[in-house]
Amino acid sequence: MKLILLFVATLIRSASAAEPTSAEILAQSAASDWRAPDPQRTLYLELASGRVVIELQPEFAPKHVANIAQLVRQKYFDGLAILRAQDNYVVQWGDPNGEKPEARPLGKAKRSLSPEFFRPSFAEVPFTALIDPDSYAPHVGFSLGMPAARDEHRTWLVHCYGMVGVGRDEAADSGGGTELYVVIGHAPRHLDRNVTLVGRVISGIERLSTLPRGSGDLGFYTDKEARPPVLRVRLAADVPPNERTALELLRTDTPTFARFVDARRQRREKWFVDPVGHVDVCNVPLPVRKRSP
Amino acid sequence: MKLILLFVATLIRSASAAEPTSAEILAQSAASDWRAPDPQRTLYLELASGRVVIELQPEFAPKHVANIAQLVRQKYFDGLAILRAQDNYVVQWGDPNGEKPEARPLGKAKRSLSPEFFRPSFAEVPFTALIDPDSYAPHVGFSLGMPAARDEHRTWLVHCYGMVGVGRDEAADSGGGTELYVVIGHAPRHLDRNVTLVGRVISGIERLSTLPRGSGDLGFYTDKEARPPVLRVRLAADVPPNERTALELLRTDTPTFARFVDARRQRREKWFVDPVGHVDVCNVPLPVRKRSP
Repeated sequence: MKLILLFVATLIRSASAAEPTSAEILAQSAASDWRAPDPQRTLYLELASGRVVIELQPEFAPKHVANIAQLVRQKYFDGLAILRAQDNYVVQWGDPNGEKPEARPLGKAKRSLSPEFFRPSFAEVPFTALIDPDSYAPHVGFSLGMPAARDEHRTWLVHCYGMVGVGRDEAADSGGGTELYVVIGHAPRHLDRNVTLVGRVISGIERLSTLPRGSGDLGFYTDKEARPPVLRVRLAADVPPNERTALELLRTDTPTFARFVDARRQRREKWFVDPVGHVDVCNVPLPVRKRSP
Repeated sequence: MKLILLFVATLIRSASAAEPTSAEILAQSAASDWRAPDPQRTLYLELASGRVVIELQPEFAPKHVANIAQLVRQKYFDGLAILRAQDNYVVQWGDPNGEKPEARPLGKAKRSLSPEFFRPSFAEVPFTALIDPDSYAPHVGFSLGMPAARDEHRTWLVHCYGMVGVGRDEAADSGGGTELYVVIGHAPRHLDRNVTLVGRVISGIERLSTLPRGSGDLGFYTDKEARPPVLRVRLAADVPPNERTALELLRTDTPTFARFVDARRQRREKWFVDPVGHVDVCNVPLPVRKRSP
């Protein structure tokens, strides 16, 4: 039995030796396999070290994305700070004064919204499913450029590295987007369907992941002086075109993407000596490349 | 059907409300649930920012662990450098001169060894299995204090955050421990059974995970000046007792650990509004606490 299995494995390896690697698939991709992020739903988080670019995904969290855009247009985040950097978990920013009287006013934006932890049906949204098992969900895959999961009656975004979510307190409806966090460690999938995810970092995440970790519980900075400042947050649409970061994202609903995922599953690069044959939804990179402006 | 499922879910939640959280289980643990790391197989990696403590696990990679200990006793790593920091992947250190003539001599140690990617049988090694599905392996769990996986004829350590492995070139037997790496991102499980893992970081990983990322391919530092120096590496046993880092590790073969894992699976903390019910092997923290020296 073992010999037969090995023989089959050898056959599969031989057959796939001629198949391209993920790098080769990207090199051979067509212009139509890529899309430019919509400047109306792209955020520039400006830190002392430079820019972090975030793509928002309103199809999964329309109220939260609209509220965040409202906060950004009001320059709500300008001059606020990164409040928390917890190793192997998240970096989070917002108003150091929280909801105190001296907190920054919210203007037309809301402090809290009803949760958008999932979409109630998956029929309406494109979903490129993985064939691999997942520890947390019956089905995982990609939807509208984001890692996602679904069961028989819900679809939700999942907490892979780089995903951006809405901080909240104990009440499910206590978040609204005034505090946002980014995953900087192993995917905390236990947060799925417990937090509203709004998008993902598509450039500059190393400016967040290398921040000094906070010394307090949950990585909060106990010393105010230690908090890295948030210089400003802007919608790309509100930045002059020549100051925008010109990026393109590989679409997740194309045959090219399906081949790319399979190449990540099989790992045909010569370096691999034991076939992998599986891939975790959070181990599929969602490629981003520079675009001529 | 949906109503029945919801009813059952409610029953489970009510029943588990009285069950302790993972923090409560740790607070109630007995002294015998903990163990001190063996100073003969504990490494201190000393950086400008302080100490990183690594527990080696010779049961899975006896030849590599012995070779690394030999290198350390020869002070091989002292004054070498961190060569690579790749975001969401690994930090790696070794000799910047690689195998060139001016490379540091290896003394009694070996440059390369036959691979120890897995143990050929799991019958001999303790294994606390998870009940949850895994994307990569038929069974995952914990063995001798480390995250591990197995199939019908092999057991291997898995690439969770903080795991330490032996860098190698294309040939499976091209690594020996002169270059070591630590996982600082989402578990790169595709490396499982393709690299020899030798242990895990049990303290100070933030000194690695916050390092500036290298600007070259694969996160290599292209500028020599940018490479963070490795001041020295020592076995804890070779450090005076009053200079050792006194730590204790939660054993992974006890009823307390099994309850801890289940508490991480169920997430009974009030903050969670949608039951999780699953856990990924790399989302179970392996608790470490300070010990009175």
